[in-house]
Amino acid sequence: MKIIHIGILGYGVVGTGVAKLLKQKKQLLESRIGAVLKLKTIADIDTITDRGVDLGSTSLVSDANLIINDPKIDIIVETIGGKTIAKKFIMDSLENKKHVVTANKALLASFGNDLVKTARNNQVDLAFEASCGGCMPIIKSLKESLVANDINSMSAILNGTCNYILTKISRDGSGFEEALKSAQKLGYAEAEPSLDIDGYDTAHKLAILNSLAHGMEINLKDIHVEGIRNITPVDIQFARSFGYTIKLLAIGRIRGDYVEARVHPTMISSSNPLSHVDMSMNAIAIDADATGQTMLYGHGAGMMPTASAVLSDIADIARNIISGIKRRVPILGYPEDNIKPIRILPMDELYTRYYLRFEAQDHPGVLSKISGILGENNISIKSVHQKGRKTNGKVPVVMITHIAKEAWVQKALKQISKTDSIVGDPIVIRIEEMDQE
Amino acid sequence: MKIIHIGILGYGVVGTGVAKLLKQKKQLLESRIGAVLKLKTIADIDTITDRGVDLGSTSLVSDANLIINDPKIDIIVETIGGKTIAKKFIMDSLENKKHVVTANKALLASFGNDLVKTARNNQVDLAFEASCGGCMPIIKSLKESLVANDINSMSAILNGTCNYILTKISRDGSGFEEALKSAQKLGYAEAEPSLDIDGYDTAHKLAILNSLAHGMEINLKDIHVEGIRNITPVDIQFARSFGYTIKLLAIGRIRGDYVEARVHPTMISSSNPLSHVDMSMNAIAIDADATGQTMLYGHGAGMMPTASAVLSDIADIARNIISGIKRRVPILGYPEDNIKPIRILPMDELYTRYYLRFEAQDHPGVLSKISGILGENNISIKSVHQKGRKTNGKVPVVMITHIAKEAWVQKALKQISKTDSIVGDPIVIRIEEMDQE
Repeated sequence: MKIIHIGILGYGVVGTGVAKLLKQKKQLLESRIGAVLKLKTIADIDTITDRGVDLGSTSLVSDANLIINDPKIDIIVETIGGKTIAKKFIMDSLENKKHVVTANKALLASFGNDLVKTARNNQVDLAFEASCGGCMPIIKSLKESLVANDINSMSAILNGTCNYILTKISRDGSGFEEALKSAQKLGYAEAEPSLDIDGYDTAHKLAILNSLAHGMEINLKDIHVEGIRNITPVDIQFARSFGYTIKLLAIGRIRGDYVEARVHPTMISSSNPLSHVDMSMNAIAIDADATGQTMLYGHGAGMMPTASAVLSDIADIARNIISGIKRRVPILGYPEDNIKPIRILPMDELYTRYYLRFEAQDHPGVLSKISGILGENNISIKSVHQKGRKTNGKVPVVMITHIAKEAWVQKALKQISKTDSIVGDPIVIRIEEMDQE
Repeated sequence: MKIIHIGILGYGVVGTGVAKLLKQKKQLLESRIGAVLKLKTIADIDTITDRGVDLGSTSLVSDANLIINDPKIDIIVETIGGKTIAKKFIMDSLENKKHVVTANKALLASFGNDLVKTARNNQVDLAFEASCGGCMPIIKSLKESLVANDINSMSAILNGTCNYILTKISRDGSGFEEALKSAQKLGYAEAEPSLDIDGYDTAHKLAILNSLAHGMEINLKDIHVEGIRNITPVDIQFARSFGYTIKLLAIGRIRGDYVEARVHPTMISSSNPLSHVDMSMNAIAIDADATGQTMLYGHGAGMMPTASAVLSDIADIARNIISGIKRRVPILGYPEDNIKPIRILPMDELYTRYYLRFEAQDHPGVLSKISGILGENNISIKSVHQKGRKTNGKVPVVMITHIAKEAWVQKALKQISKTDSIVGDPIVIRIEEMDQE
């Protein structure tokens, strides 16, 4: 049986998961693929700590170059993370004609186009199923299963930390800080949680998925990103009373010649299957022209779910090697020359519906003032709600708008904030309707 | 650009969808795959009716052999359906070294092993993504994405007709017959609906999925099949009061050296993501050892969703042809020699929980008699419920059991039916708990 040699760079959580699966599923993989997937070398700065994997004949070394420069190694798995040394190692590996498998969404979102170019120049493969949605086969679906579809839109829950916190606030009525602490205690959130809760991790994944879905270059910098720090139990209760759930969504939608690309807390109706995706689970809903609405659901992170996705990439490349071919499916789903120059819609140009909550002064004329300013800015109000009790002479006023332009809404909110009608900043949560279009 | 020639056998709903997509998405497919997918010939007995497709240079003929024997044609799409002529045409195509793409689950479930063998003998490919779950990429996921997983269980809603009817009964409280009529009116159910509502179509799909998930031969005949004719609004209301939803599930679960393979109405908890899959939508939940719980969701039928899945198979084979390879991934996910002789667990050996509903005579001692017989048969009762009003001296009694053996339950029910305590047949609905194991 042909032997395919694998090296792993980075023996942390994901690297350990990949090593475990390669060892535990040796027989299964050989039986399915018809080749031996031999884990030859792992490189990590820490060669001491026991990860609980019986390495057998696999070497654990501290010098990554022992993998990158090993002429026997066919596939290099990068599980270091981050954008500095991981980038150099991947570039060096590609230059050395190694196929590379990575789960590194931050790197792909920022430098993916360069990596794709280098892989092309060296005629090797670059695979990253584990970078988005953990074990969900979203990359393969976009590149292969949906090949005959134009994708109208994607809406996705791609960060388990945020989804856990929002579920927690929703179920227990706890505040954001309390829910974050609970997530940290359970290991769902980092001590420094900004990458997750401020939406950046979700944006990294959206940049990658947008490229695959719409055949465009990876574009992170133009994605609008908001996190979940401002979400309160009050807004979640209001949402529930309207039949909505609040989720941190990544939205990638074709809008004329542009693509909407935005990450922000979003109200979705309970008829949207994403509204039932709770705790740390992830899901991605895709609306494509032939398939209609579809959804993938699963663990978006974690040692073994992520390792499962890495293994599917390794198996794909191994099958190519056995067949004597490479680069069978283009890295971004389209041959590099056919990637289209699609631009991201400037956020000001977005049209959608809005939930607006103001802490209004409880005196006559306030409501008329607020709605007057909205009206002057072309924003028509669908409904006004005043629930809950007055606190210190202030009362929460919630308005749901009809479809309005983001620029109008931002301008109106600035004007409203300047009046003495409200206290503090208005809360703005965009509303997605499945049948909005 | 290389030209790959395609022929379609059967110009009905699915065949028309495939022709439409090949024509409408010509540019997209060329841009993605780097080859021309040329629809050379369509064969159908009806060459007259306008299907609304601009055929251009494609010939529409009545003689299937003009496709099967055309030396230019590389890929043949079978969309005739059924087990007679479709089987002959596929066999002839494979013998003529054509790659075959089909959506024919009935044929695959009954004769799939023969077809796989013939494809192997002739070293061609046989692909059937559209046979299970419509546009959901379940076949590719099982064969490729989950390659490093042992699959513990699958639970799936695979028939849109049944799911529509059950949703309808649940939402409107309408009876089975009324809901069926509504499904027929909307085109979700055939005039002769038995294949769907008696569970056979679901069983066909389960036979295929079990093979791919567990690396076993396709085995239809040992699958236990029950349909939804006996489901009443009463049972759905009881289910709801316990926090359950009733779905027609296909269940394929490893149980020791056997595989459970059964299709029947099933009560699932509202925490199970399948419980939110409504109307004619399909979904498949997979519990695998590395990924944990995942789910795919989408349209399980319909012209364009099915055609989308057929096109993904065509693209896969086309990519192989361009690369000069074939049979890159084994047809059943495992090389034919590695298919394991796994048997289906005899239904009598099943252990699960049961919902039992009796129309009991309303006189003293009846409850004690029923529970006595259950107890004598080792069945322990978790709870007893008597809701609703007495009708003609009869009262509905519902019992939820702890885990019990199917053989015990069937034996006890026979004994209970022989007493004068109840009227009519007891209603038995099995309960699946996600955390049952």
